[in-house]
Amino acid sequence: MNLIRTREESYININPLQTGGRTNAAVRLTAANYVDGYSVCDYCKGVLHLIEKPPICDLTRQLAEFLGMDDARLTLGAREGKFAVMHTMLEPGDAIVVDSNRHYSTYVAAERAGAKVYDVPNTGHPAYEITPQAYRNTFEQVLSETGTVPKLALLTHVDGEYGNLADACEVGKICREYEVPFLLNTAYTAGRMEVDGKQLLADFVVVSAHKGFGVPGTIGILAATEKWAERLFRKSTRYPKKDVELLGCTARSGAAACLITALPYVKERVKHWDEEVAKARWFVEQMEGLGDIEQLGIRPTRHDLIRLKTPLFHEITRKHRKKGYFLYRELEKRGIIGLKPGQTEWFKLSTYGFTWDQIKYMFGAFEEIAKNLGG
Amino acid sequence: MNLIRTREESYININPLQTGGRTNAAVRLTAANYVDGYSVCDYCKGVLHLIEKPPICDLTRQLAEFLGMDDARLTLGAREGKFAVMHTMLEPGDAIVVDSNRHYSTYVAAERAGAKVYDVPNTGHPAYEITPQAYRNTFEQVLSETGTVPKLALLTHVDGEYGNLADACEVGKICREYEVPFLLNTAYTAGRMEVDGKQLLADFVVVSAHKGFGVPGTIGILAATEKWAERLFRKSTRYPKKDVELLGCTARSGAAACLITALPYVKERVKHWDEEVAKARWFVEQMEGLGDIEQLGIRPTRHDLIRLKTPLFHEITRKHRKKGYFLYRELEKRGIIGLKPGQTEWFKLSTYGFTWDQIKYMFGAFEEIAKNLGG
Repeated sequence: MNLIRTREESYININPLQTGGRTNAAVRLTAANYVDGYSVCDYCKGVLHLIEKPPICDLTRQLAEFLGMDDARLTLGAREGKFAVMHTMLEPGDAIVVDSNRHYSTYVAAERAGAKVYDVPNTGHPAYEITPQAYRNTFEQVLSETGTVPKLALLTHVDGEYGNLADACEVGKICREYEVPFLLNTAYTAGRMEVDGKQLLADFVVVSAHKGFGVPGTIGILAATEKWAERLFRKSTRYPKKDVELLGCTARSGAAACLITALPYVKERVKHWDEEVAKARWFVEQMEGLGDIEQLGIRPTRHDLIRLKTPLFHEITRKHRKKGYFLYRELEKRGIIGLKPGQTEWFKLSTYGFTWDQIKYMFGAFEEIAKNLGG
Repeated sequence: MNLIRTREESYININPLQTGGRTNAAVRLTAANYVDGYSVCDYCKGVLHLIEKPPICDLTRQLAEFLGMDDARLTLGAREGKFAVMHTMLEPGDAIVVDSNRHYSTYVAAERAGAKVYDVPNTGHPAYEITPQAYRNTFEQVLSETGTVPKLALLTHVDGEYGNLADACEVGKICREYEVPFLLNTAYTAGRMEVDGKQLLADFVVVSAHKGFGVPGTIGILAATEKWAERLFRKSTRYPKKDVELLGCTARSGAAACLITALPYVKERVKHWDEEVAKARWFVEQMEGLGDIEQLGIRPTRHDLIRLKTPLFHEITRKHRKKGYFLYRELEKRGIIGLKPGQTEWFKLSTYGFTWDQIKYMFGAFEEIAKNLGG
């Protein structure tokens, strides 16, 4: 079966999962050169992160530096990185503290590791903010319930529900105070904005490269400080070159070669993060100007992932023959995809990486739909 | 950095890791359509193996059937599948029995799961065969040492060292007799030859699709019988659609779309396995005919992965100015790559998927090198 995705690729895709993972022409060229199964392993000498051609050995060193950490490895994604840290740090029954805005896979990874999850509540409607103080409260709760501090704390740097940028450094300070190792999930930040793990007091940083570094999947990064690197990247007793927690090699695919190609572009693009935030804010302002639309999460937003409550569009479903699907269809007609079909009460979108002209075109589409069908 | 792999792709690559993972034009077309990070998730409704466009939901059903098992999921590779089974079936300290021809990642996965590994010895030089009887002996050893049968047994259907095809069905019978769940690693068989898991009495089957199904990495298959599927594919307590052991979704990349494209070709190619074995046998016979070359492993070979002991070539290193590297260089000059640079005492290669003309050309190259430089 030939699978063509022309439509989705040609359209403006506003799905927040997709905007940071879009590939450029250079990455596509590399991808086309490493399609065959184990092609990246042509010159393997036993371990993925030591391969010299393509220069993956150099890549992992560069990635550690880029993330402000001491050591790094490729993983198969952010969730796989989270599990690797949890599986290293937690025994079944141990307590882990995670923010309640976390991705489901954070919870599932903890569940797979047999850990007991303590949620850090957010501030609720409308900001849904995770405050450092709430971490302190949850640490105290764990202390009083179990008699000991949690074995690990995880913070989602920017969450996928509200696009809230959390104050990682302040959470890190509280972790230091309680001596709780601190894992920062940067799936929605690293590759978009500068992330300096050690400056944020993180012990571990996980990255989703197919979400944030403009490469094909599946690939991520797991970085650690010197203090933990040896334990996290412990070697097999029988195979002294092989990382146990990584099962030897992880992203043994063209994605690793693509990340080499992508990294210089990513290093450049994070310098322009302010402009990306400016686009997101402009878009929110315009949308709210249509009336009966409200951005949820921290205001003004500090990220391209935007969650909007949209009674304006929901109202239209009452009389439109396509019911809740009208918005998806109307956007599609205008070359915009990535909204969940049927969603009108609220939706999420991302403005990341689009030109100002595209951002204006996107807003124009929503405006036109609201004017044609609303009121 | 633009990474071009033209050389390796244009050459005849005899690396056993690569021959079953080579992609055809149709798969490449699909790959080119799914380069962007999360592109396969355009129409996700929450779980990878339920995605309808591209039809991954249908794929997993087809894969279960193709492998003669009741249920299947995509994984990120064979090793990730092995770990998922081990992590499900074994508590730290539990005994697992594995053949000593296994891939290193089998051992590392067991180590990661905290299991105690009992090796089933092979018959030693020159066949290095894993016999069913040796499983019985190792089960008895575990029984006498621990007072209980092992919690899991793993057999490498064809190993990566000698290309020995093990008698899975007979091992399966012994597993049934001792009531030991049986995990069959088909990284070097599924996708090349027909594998019917239930007929081989396997409880679990793991597959490496980037090694055996002609698709880009990283992707594999994990299949189970009805008896174990619910336990292996258990759902999160908080997210009832999400498989805990798979962290929700695994091969969330273009590789999943490629596998859809590849499957009809794979279903066809396994029917021609006899011809592949014939090519391997012909090649071995010709090579041995050069003198002072011996095929190790089961004779006549039943697989395309061939291990040759080659004093003939090793002798040449004594007088050649390139020392052990002469063979790699001489083959490279003739358009053949995939041998480990420096290896001359013995080497592994694969004849899989080459035409008879290519096979003859390959032998001709070795013959020419032997005649020009040997004796």
